[in-house]
Amino acid sequence: MSAVLADTAGVSQARTSPTIAAVLLGTGVVGGAFLKLLNTPAAASIRLVGAANSRRQQTQAEPLADRALREKLKTQGDVRNDIALLDALDANDAPLKVIIDATACGTLASRHAEWLARGYHVVTANKSLAGGDLPGWRALQAALAQGGRYGDSATVGAGLPVISTLRRLRHCGDALLTLEGVFSGSLSYLFNHYDGSQPFSALLRRARELGYTEPDPRSDLSGEDVARKLLILARCAGFALRPDEVEVESLVPGSLRSLDVESFLSRLEELDEPLATRFAEAKARGGALRFLARLNQRGRARVGLVEVPANHPATRLYGTDNQFALSTTRYNTQPLVIQGPGAGPEVTAQALLGDVLALV
Amino acid sequence: MSAVLADTAGVSQARTSPTIAAVLLGTGVVGGAFLKLLNTPAAASIRLVGAANSRRQQTQAEPLADRALREKLKTQGDVRNDIALLDALDANDAPLKVIIDATACGTLASRHAEWLARGYHVVTANKSLAGGDLPGWRALQAALAQGGRYGDSATVGAGLPVISTLRRLRHCGDALLTLEGVFSGSLSYLFNHYDGSQPFSALLRRARELGYTEPDPRSDLSGEDVARKLLILARCAGFALRPDEVEVESLVPGSLRSLDVESFLSRLEELDEPLATRFAEAKARGGALRFLARLNQRGRARVGLVEVPANHPATRLYGTDNQFALSTTRYNTQPLVIQGPGAGPEVTAQALLGDVLALV
Repeated sequence: MSAVLADTAGVSQARTSPTIAAVLLGTGVVGGAFLKLLNTPAAASIRLVGAANSRRQQTQAEPLADRALREKLKTQGDVRNDIALLDALDANDAPLKVIIDATACGTLASRHAEWLARGYHVVTANKSLAGGDLPGWRALQAALAQGGRYGDSATVGAGLPVISTLRRLRHCGDALLTLEGVFSGSLSYLFNHYDGSQPFSALLRRARELGYTEPDPRSDLSGEDVARKLLILARCAGFALRPDEVEVESLVPGSLRSLDVESFLSRLEELDEPLATRFAEAKARGGALRFLARLNQRGRARVGLVEVPANHPATRLYGTDNQFALSTTRYNTQPLVIQGPGAGPEVTAQALLGDVLALV
Repeated sequence: MSAVLADTAGVSQARTSPTIAAVLLGTGVVGGAFLKLLNTPAAASIRLVGAANSRRQQTQAEPLADRALREKLKTQGDVRNDIALLDALDANDAPLKVIIDATACGTLASRHAEWLARGYHVVTANKSLAGGDLPGWRALQAALAQGGRYGDSATVGAGLPVISTLRRLRHCGDALLTLEGVFSGSLSYLFNHYDGSQPFSALLRRARELGYTEPDPRSDLSGEDVARKLLILARCAGFALRPDEVEVESLVPGSLRSLDVESFLSRLEELDEPLATRFAEAKARGGALRFLARLNQRGRARVGLVEVPANHPATRLYGTDNQFALSTTRYNTQPLVIQGPGAGPEVTAQALLGDVLALV
């Protein structure tokens, strides 16, 4: 076969003339994965001029190029100082300047609008602004109206083409009828596997051992992270909702919410009976249980456990896959469905990289 | 609820100052649907300066604005003349100029590279160049290297975000391991419903009555259209294949290929036994039959009937949905799957509109 790898788009640029100067905030699991990607040919057009964790930062070239940067910053480096990072961007002659937020820090997110207003682009996995209070989101929109670019692919679906598709359809005048999906890998796994053959708590313990839930599973079971993602998508769809307008059904019984983690973990069995009852009822009606995020055409946003018919898209999920199903004016007989791994450091870091490269 | 429709992105521009001047080639089902979209607010930034079917064209403003343009062009208009269409583009002061190809005409597609080289952008549903012979595709790549934009979302998946996702992943250095899918609505419908309970020919007749196949079903059953789409995607993935390098298993027995349509339709039952045998064998092994397009990491491209396991993504399709499943270095535990309506005039026209608007 004469197949020749034809490098049509995305040809890497010479390392001596980067097009993009970047500052990376956050060197945790996502930031660390992003640093690895920066050392691949795909990132040749990006010059890292600053990197910071929550306490320290570097703007000198040598430590930044070091593959051990993430480790070094744990104990060495300058004191955290945004001005020095922005100065490093200004000092570089690359035409595009971007701040990459790989943290989950609300305080950093609150500065995104200011950075955009000052002419920097922002690429973020940090959901705290786009998925935060309404005034903050409005400030972001106002800042964007002045020309900066905000790469937010990594905030929902970690690189699955959800936000971009939602925006494209809206841009074409295709009205959203419903958006439904499974926005949590943990909850996807749990309800893909919960078939009544074992207590929910047993499945939950197993999922936690496999690393599919947070060490405190209430972070996943509360539905709050799903709600934040739905809020972001609802706003992309044109509904300027407040966070409290997303109706959330937590899977954590009220009596267990305030316990310390150890006490909670010792009482997981208290989740079993209510769920077993709902499961049996659904099964009797030929349905299944899935923890869904749902948005309708009037902007009503809900998160919670839903009984779905046996042929619902969410019954066709495997592993920890996320799923996003869009029904619109033109996608109205069958929904447009996007599914796959929607979380994890590598795909999240890749989503950040994709947004940075898209600035060119 | 205080949801306010917040028009963040894609705010329509004043009709008096269009950003994009466009010529539309093709006023058939897709072109007709596109003309309807041009009359919606989403297309306010686009000024149509010329429109043509295979025999006639218009470049005067009044007939172009007419909702009956498609009908008028059937009997009235100027003789077809590319130069007059390009002159109409040049005469308009909009900063972006685009030629929209809503035809399936190979001759028109062979002019895309020339238009790009002359500084016009091209947005196309016409697969004949990107999915045509290798020299033509190379000429396209050469023309693109000079700066023109080629919007090809409508060539595969009619607006499902397949090509854009494939390119983004490649741009990020994420190597393709496999691409698999169902690229034909007809063949999706047929094999989603073929369960051995009726002969295949009965199902085929029913599909044809419903308009799910071409009037001559051999156009669908041959797999040639699927092969052309796979060729386009393989080239997007970096494999510069020749058309003959796509291995195609036609579902049409050799003895039936050269018949006139009526004779073919009277002999559909000759398809039944071989398919019934394959179906029974697959079922005995716990599998199913699906007509798949497949590309592997070495660039081997195949189209044909495949026995798949019961949990294969293609067993989770409904109606006439298309499906595209990408496995890559980073999407390797579960594939990234995009599925939904992948054909039809409305979604295809919307894909064209999305690509035109993306030029801004």
